[in-house]
Amino acid sequence: MNQIIKPTVILVRPQMGENIGAVARAMRNFGLAELRIVAPRDGWPNPAAEAMAAHGADIIHQAKVYTTLPEALADVHYCYALTARDRRMSKPCVTPKEGADEMVSRTQQGQKVALMFGPERSGLENEDVAQSQAIVTIPTDEQYASLNIAQSAVVMCYEWFQAQREDEASVPRIPAPQAEWQHFFAFTEQALDESGFFKDDAKKTRLWQNVRSTFQRAELTAPELRTLFGIMQSLRRK
Amino acid sequence: MNQIIKPTVILVRPQMGENIGAVARAMRNFGLAELRIVAPRDGWPNPAAEAMAAHGADIIHQAKVYTTLPEALADVHYCYALTARDRRMSKPCVTPKEGADEMVSRTQQGQKVALMFGPERSGLENEDVAQSQAIVTIPTDEQYASLNIAQSAVVMCYEWFQAQREDEASVPRIPAPQAEWQHFFAFTEQALDESGFFKDDAKKTRLWQNVRSTFQRAELTAPELRTLFGIMQSLRRK
Repeated sequence: MNQIIKPTVILVRPQMGENIGAVARAMRNFGLAELRIVAPRDGWPNPAAEAMAAHGADIIHQAKVYTTLPEALADVHYCYALTARDRRMSKPCVTPKEGADEMVSRTQQGQKVALMFGPERSGLENEDVAQSQAIVTIPTDEQYASLNIAQSAVVMCYEWFQAQREDEASVPRIPAPQAEWQHFFAFTEQALDESGFFKDDAKKTRLWQNVRSTFQRAELTAPELRTLFGIMQSLRRK
Repeated sequence: MNQIIKPTVILVRPQMGENIGAVARAMRNFGLAELRIVAPRDGWPNPAAEAMAAHGADIIHQAKVYTTLPEALADVHYCYALTARDRRMSKPCVTPKEGADEMVSRTQQGQKVALMFGPERSGLENEDVAQSQAIVTIPTDEQYASLNIAQSAVVMCYEWFQAQREDEASVPRIPAPQAEWQHFFAFTEQALDESGFFKDDAKKTRLWQNVRSTFQRAELTAPELRTLFGIMQSLRRK
């Protein structure tokens, strides 16, 4: 984690200082630190933001304020826009967990990633969303879709924290490459043909498809697949 | 979902009306409805709670107030206590996602499930936690573990909503029972012994363990396992 740049949070035209403070608090709880604020309605600094931030007060003190969104995005490689509404834009639209997993891999690749939240009353304008690379929508009760920015920030910071923890804990399992599967399946199909496993030509296609998906479900590594290959060869030789 | 009793949220000795309202708002966003309040510091009703609840105001109106926690828990079968601290109690301790998945299965089995949150300043007392069946701890930055109740409620309501959505979408895959695996492994082990697969008795134990875990990783259903069994038998016959 040490060398990796963590995601930045960008609040676009936030209205209530209390909400800015609550976002900073959630950021601190979940290990994020960089806050950018675009054109805050009540100016800056804002005592209400500081009061609400609790242990996130230093995030408020270090927050950078910008006049326009393009300035706040200048050094960002990939920005996720949080929005409840379907924007009918041709952008990837992901869940919070998908977005968080993506953010972890992007930061590992050296990208500077941002999460962008809109003003309380109206959310992000289409023009704001157009400046993002992807949309995150938090699934909610259909009738009451509007989360406030502090709530959305809790969900996203929480998911990011879980994603980077899981990433640290996980040992990557690399599945066997397709070429090895093809080799394995070619051998097995022929062996089964010769042994009379496919009693009926008509049913063979479907049965053989099912057998292949069953084997592939296990996402075997190359060494595991070779062991399985060894088993098939050994049984056949006998 | 219609016939299932959704989880109840219990706030124990909450202090700020604003936080009670924020919890109700989060509940509404994520489809929960029943709120119970034990000994609220500022009495009840509380105008600040109503103001903060936004579209969750009816949850505030319908909230039931209790004098003691045992009364609020009387009809509850399984209660999760939210706490950041390690209580050294012999209770299951789960993550929000694990807790949410469990809650979904418990409610499906007809259990009335509750999520219990403590007062803002001090959190739940040990005596409160002792009345729960399990502990949920939200993983956070180690230095800043304290989430306020509204933030914790957002995380838990969010995870519950995801868990029940996934549950609705999923077609349960029932893995083959152990007896079928034992039968399959007994046959395969003998066939491999006879075919000379285990060249070396010393290495057999380890290799055979690996082979079994490889097969079991796929969590095959009974029909899939039978197909695999058929393959092994067919190859051996030849």
